[in-house]
Amino acid sequence: MSSTRVTNEEDITRTASSRTASSRRHSENLPYVHKVGVPPKQSLLKEITYTLKETFFHDDPLRPFKDQSSSRKLVLGIQSIFPILDWGRHYSLSKFKGDLIAGLTIASLCIPQDIGYAKLANLDPQFGLYSSFVPPLIYAFMGSSRDIAIGPVAVVSLLLGTMLQDEIDPKNKLELGFLIDFLSHAAIVGFMAGASITISLQQLKGLLGIKKFTKKTDIVSVMRSVWTNVHHGWNWQTILIGLTFLAFLLLAKYIGKKNRKLFWVPAIAPLISVIISTFFVYITHANKKGVQIVNHIEQGINPSSLNKIYFTGDYLAKGFRIGVVAGMIALTEAVAIGRTFAAMKDYHLDGNKEMVALGTMNVIGSMTSCYVATGSFSRSAVNYMAGCNTAVANIVMSCVVLLTLLVITPLFKYTPNAILASIIISAVLGLFDIDAMILIWKIDKFDFVACMGAFFGVVFSSVEMGLLIAVAISFAKILLQVTRPRTAVLGKVPRTSVYRNIQQYPEATKVPGVLIIRVDSAIYFSNSNYIRERILRWLTDEEDKLQENNLPRIQYLVVEMSPVTDIDTSGIHSLEDLYKSLQKREIQLILANPGQVVLDKLHASDFANVIGDDKIFLTVADAITTLAPKMEP
Amino acid sequence: MSSTRVTNEEDITRTASSRTASSRRHSENLPYVHKVGVPPKQSLLKEITYTLKETFFHDDPLRPFKDQSSSRKLVLGIQSIFPILDWGRHYSLSKFKGDLIAGLTIASLCIPQDIGYAKLANLDPQFGLYSSFVPPLIYAFMGSSRDIAIGPVAVVSLLLGTMLQDEIDPKNKLELGFLIDFLSHAAIVGFMAGASITISLQQLKGLLGIKKFTKKTDIVSVMRSVWTNVHHGWNWQTILIGLTFLAFLLLAKYIGKKNRKLFWVPAIAPLISVIISTFFVYITHANKKGVQIVNHIEQGINPSSLNKIYFTGDYLAKGFRIGVVAGMIALTEAVAIGRTFAAMKDYHLDGNKEMVALGTMNVIGSMTSCYVATGSFSRSAVNYMAGCNTAVANIVMSCVVLLTLLVITPLFKYTPNAILASIIISAVLGLFDIDAMILIWKIDKFDFVACMGAFFGVVFSSVEMGLLIAVAISFAKILLQVTRPRTAVLGKVPRTSVYRNIQQYPEATKVPGVLIIRVDSAIYFSNSNYIRERILRWLTDEEDKLQENNLPRIQYLVVEMSPVTDIDTSGIHSLEDLYKSLQKREIQLILANPGQVVLDKLHASDFANVIGDDKIFLTVADAITTLAPKMEP
Repeated sequence: MSSTRVTNEEDITRTASSRTASSRRHSENLPYVHKVGVPPKQSLLKEITYTLKETFFHDDPLRPFKDQSSSRKLVLGIQSIFPILDWGRHYSLSKFKGDLIAGLTIASLCIPQDIGYAKLANLDPQFGLYSSFVPPLIYAFMGSSRDIAIGPVAVVSLLLGTMLQDEIDPKNKLELGFLIDFLSHAAIVGFMAGASITISLQQLKGLLGIKKFTKKTDIVSVMRSVWTNVHHGWNWQTILIGLTFLAFLLLAKYIGKKNRKLFWVPAIAPLISVIISTFFVYITHANKKGVQIVNHIEQGINPSSLNKIYFTGDYLAKGFRIGVVAGMIALTEAVAIGRTFAAMKDYHLDGNKEMVALGTMNVIGSMTSCYVATGSFSRSAVNYMAGCNTAVANIVMSCVVLLTLLVITPLFKYTPNAILASIIISAVLGLFDIDAMILIWKIDKFDFVACMGAFFGVVFSSVEMGLLIAVAISFAKILLQVTRPRTAVLGKVPRTSVYRNIQQYPEATKVPGVLIIRVDSAIYFSNSNYIRERILRWLTDEEDKLQENNLPRIQYLVVEMSPVTDIDTSGIHSLEDLYKSLQKREIQLILANPGQVVLDKLHASDFANVIGDDKIFLTVADAITTLAPKMEP
Repeated sequence: MSSTRVTNEEDITRTASSRTASSRRHSENLPYVHKVGVPPKQSLLKEITYTLKETFFHDDPLRPFKDQSSSRKLVLGIQSIFPILDWGRHYSLSKFKGDLIAGLTIASLCIPQDIGYAKLANLDPQFGLYSSFVPPLIYAFMGSSRDIAIGPVAVVSLLLGTMLQDEIDPKNKLELGFLIDFLSHAAIVGFMAGASITISLQQLKGLLGIKKFTKKTDIVSVMRSVWTNVHHGWNWQTILIGLTFLAFLLLAKYIGKKNRKLFWVPAIAPLISVIISTFFVYITHANKKGVQIVNHIEQGINPSSLNKIYFTGDYLAKGFRIGVVAGMIALTEAVAIGRTFAAMKDYHLDGNKEMVALGTMNVIGSMTSCYVATGSFSRSAVNYMAGCNTAVANIVMSCVVLLTLLVITPLFKYTPNAILASIIISAVLGLFDIDAMILIWKIDKFDFVACMGAFFGVVFSSVEMGLLIAVAISFAKILLQVTRPRTAVLGKVPRTSVYRNIQQYPEATKVPGVLIIRVDSAIYFSNSNYIRERILRWLTDEEDKLQENNLPRIQYLVVEMSPVTDIDTSGIHSLEDLYKSLQKREIQLILANPGQVVLDKLHASDFANVIGDDKIFLTVADAITTLAPKMEP
C-alpha cells in the first residue's frame, strides 16, 4: 500500500497545457507544492448533454444497453418496461410459497380497508375493492419494487374526499421526477400526522353513529359538530360496537408490535372484526336500532368507466389541480415506500420506471372504475414481514379481491359502519410517527418548524393548506440555503498541515498576518454580494482585534475555495470587487483549491490573470508555506 | 513563522468532551491522526438568533453601537439614518469644489434627459424635472453612496409608460433586501440590452415625426407601424434635425470615450443640442412645417400631489403590481451602481440603509408630483469622472433643476421632440453592453441563456415578459443547484497527502480497494436521494471497471464531506440507506471531515454511533493512513 504514503516519486506526469504557475519548489526544506490542475476544456455540446443527463436521467437508464446488438436492445427495452419478463424467468416454486402467504395476508388486510377508504373518499364501497384489483395486477408487470403492496391509501382518499365531489381522471403522473424532491421528509411526517388526526376525527361520524356531520375537516368544526350532536345524535349501540372492536384492533396491533413473529395477528384482525360484527348485526337486527350498516355493495368485477371520462366541462381545471396534488402525494408515498424496502434488501429501485408503472396503472385504473391507487405503507410492511419475494404477492392479492367481488360482496351488507371507522382509525394511527418527530426536533430545528407547520395546517385548516405550508417552508429553506451560505475562519490544526474551522476546532491556531476564510457554497448571483460583504466583515472584525492587541496587520487574505463548486458572472464580479477593496487596504487576495469549473471560469473571465496565477494554490497549506517567507516581519 | 510548518509540538489542548474516538496514534511510523472536532453545543435560542441575524442583518448595522453610552447611541442612531450628519462634519471647501463642478455637469445632462424620460413614461415633461429636484435632495441626507446621481432613468420610465396609463403611488420599497438577489447579473444585462432596443424603437416616433404610432413595444409591432407610415407619416424636416443631432451626440460620446479627460463633452452635448435646436426652430418656425415641439411645459416648483394618492379603487391591485416591479428594478439598479462605485473608492455601502433612503425619497416624491427616481448609471459615471466627493453634488444638481423649473422652463416650448428622441437614443445605447454579453458567454453558458431569454423576451414580447423570463431562468438555475449537486471521485495527488478530483488532476491516483467520493453540497431533502443514488452509481461503475481488469474489490467507500455544510433529516435518512446498501455489499462507509453542524446532527440522530465513531476522520489522508494496514490483501 505504498501509494497511500507521502512519497517523493518523480514519475509525475505534468500536463503540457499548464496555464498556472504555482508549481515550483522553493528549496529543499519546504514541502513540495503541487500546481493547481487545469484539465482540457470540454466542448459546449458535451457539457450541456452531461447536465441534461444528470438532471433527468441520473440513474443512467440506458446503461444495460451499452455495447449490445439491436435485437438484444429490443428485448432489453421491452424488459425495462415490463421487469416481470426479467425476474419472471428465474421465478421458482419456493419463491411462490412466500408470495402466496404474503398475498393472502395482505388481501385479508386490504378488503376491509378498501371499503373504509372508499367511504373516506365519498365513494361507494365497491370502488375501493375495484382499485385493489386492476392496479396491483398492472403494477406486478411493470413495477420494480418487490415489496410494495398496491391499493387505495388513507391520505389520498381523504384528499379526494375533501377536495372534490365530482369524478376526476387521475392522469397526473406525467410530472417530472425531480418535482418529488420538493417535499422534505419533515414536511411529509408533519403532513401525515396531521392527516391521521383529521382522518380519525372524520371517523367519529361512524364511530358515534352521528347522522348530521360537518363536511369540513378542521378540528374546530368537527369537534363542534360532535358536541352539538351529543344529546340526540349519538347512538350508544354503535358506540359500543365501535369501541369494542377498536380496542380489539389496537390490542392486535400491540401484540404484533411486541412479537414480530405474530405480525399476522394485526393483519387478519380487521377481517375477523368485519366477520364477527357483520354476523352479530345480522342476528341481533341492530340495524333496526340505529346502527348504520354498509347496506348496499355492488357485486361483480370492475365495469368500464371510459364513458365517464371527460376532458371538457367546468370541472376540468379543478379536476386537474386535485389530480396533480393527489398524484404528487401518491407518487411521493409509493417511491418513499419502495426505496425503504429496496434499501433493506439492497436492490435498485428505478425512480423513473416506478413513475411509469404507477402512472400506467392509474390511467388504466381510471378506465376501469378505480380511484387513485398507490403503495400503502402498512400493507407493504405486512407484505415484507409475511415473506413476499416478488410482485407476485400483488397478483395473489388481486385474485383474492376478484373472488371477493364475484362471490362474497353481498355478505358485507350488514357490516356496521362503526367497524369500518375502527379499522380506519387503527390503520391511520400508524401515520402519526411521534418518534420521527422527536428525531426531527433533535436533528434540525428548521425541519421541525416545517413539520409542525404542515401538521397544524392540516389539523386546524385543511389538507390543502397543510400541504401548501409544507411546500412553502421547504422552499423557504432552499432559498435560505442559496442566499445565505456559511463562511468560516480557518486555523491550522496542531501537528498537521490541515486547516479547519476555528469554531469547530478551538485548538486550531491562526497564522499571523494571514486571514483564511472558507466559503461553503457555489458563488452565484443569489449569494455573491452576501459572500463578498461577509468576507469583508470577517476581515474588519479580525483587524479590529489585531489592532486592540497590537499584533501585526493582515497581509494576505486566503479564500479556501474547496466547497465552491461553481461560480457565475455575478460571482466573478463579486470577486473582482473584493479584490479591489483588498487592494485599497494593501492586502493580497489568495485563492486556495478552486475546483475545475471555477478555475475554468476564473481564466475565461481573465480574473486569474488580474490577481496573478501565482496567487492560486492547490491547498491552504501550500499557500501558507509559499507566502510565509515573503511576509513583512 | 514556525506555526506554519508541520511540527511535533505536544502542547495541544485536548477538549474534554470528546465524543469521537479517532484520536490515536497507531505507531511511530504512521502520521499523527487528529481527532474530529466536536465543539460544545449551542443553545437553541442562540442558534435561531444567529440565523435570523445572518439572513436579514448580515452587515451588522448595530456594530458601532457596541459598548457606547445611551446618549451616544442616540446620536449614532440618528447618524445612521442621516449619514450626512456624520460626513458633513468633515466637509471642506476643497471637497465642495469637486462637488460643485460635478453637480453642474450632471445637471446639464439631466435636464434634457428628464424631459425625454418623462415623455417615455407618458407624463408631461415637467414631471421629469420635478423628479430630479426633490428625490436627490432627500437622498443627499439619507443615502450612503457618494457617487450616485439620483433622478428618473430610462428603463423604469419605459416600464411605467408601457405598464400603466393611470397614476400610481410608488410606495413599494418595503420589500426585504434579499429579494434583490434573485435577479442574476446575466439576466439584468439581457434585460437592459432589450430595454435599450425597445426604448430606441419607441423614439422612432419622435425621430421620424410619425403621428399615429402603435402603443405596443415589441419589435414586430413597432416596425410594422414605422413601415405603414413611410409614405405620408414621416416628416423630412424632423428627420433631418433628429439625425443631425443624433450624429452630433454620438460623436460627442465617442470623443468622451476616446479621451477620458473630455468626459464633459458628452455630458453637456445634450444641453447644447437642446439650446441650438430650440433656437433654430424658434427662428425658422419649423413647427409650422410639421416638426413637433414640446409646446407646453409647466413653470414653477413641484405642486403637492398628496390629494392624488388613492388607496382604494379598481386600479389598486394593478398599481401595486407595477409598483413592485418598478421598485425592484429601480432598487436593483441603484444598489448595483452604488456598489460599483463604492468598490472603486473602497467605502462601505449599506444595502439596508440604501433601501431606506431610496424608499423614503420615493415616498416623499410621490407626495410632491415626482415619479420613480433612482440611481442613473450614465449620470453617476459622469458624476464620478467630474470628481464628485460627496452627495453634495446631488444637492447642487437639485438646485440647478430648481432654477430651471422657476425661470427657464418656458424657453423649452420650441424644443423639437426629435431632439429629445436623439438624446434618449444616445443615452440608452450605453445600456446595450455587448462586452458584458461576450464575457457572460465565455464564463457561463447557462447565464448566457438567461441573458438572451431576457433580451429576446423584452424585444419580441414586452418588458414584463422579459422580466418574467429573466426571473424564471434565474430560479431554474437555483433549483438545479439545489437538486443536482456535483459529486466527484478523488485520487491522491502525487507527492502530497492531498486528495483531489481525478478529472481535474488526471495525475492523481486512486487508492486500491478504496473509493473516495466528494459531495459538493449541503445534503437536504431536495438532493438527498440524488446524492445517494449518484454515490451508488459511482461505486457500481468502479466495481465494473475493477472486475474487468481483475483488480482487488472495493472495501471502503470514503465520503469526503468538507463541502457538505449542512444536512437535514432527509439527508440523514439517505446516509442510513446508503449505509445499509453498502453493508449488503460488504463495503464499509467512512466519513471524512464532516463540518461542525453536520457532526452535531450525525450524533443527534445516532447515525454516528451506527457507523461507529472510528469511521469518522479529520481528513481523507487520515482515513487512508488508518485504513490501509487493515485492508485485505
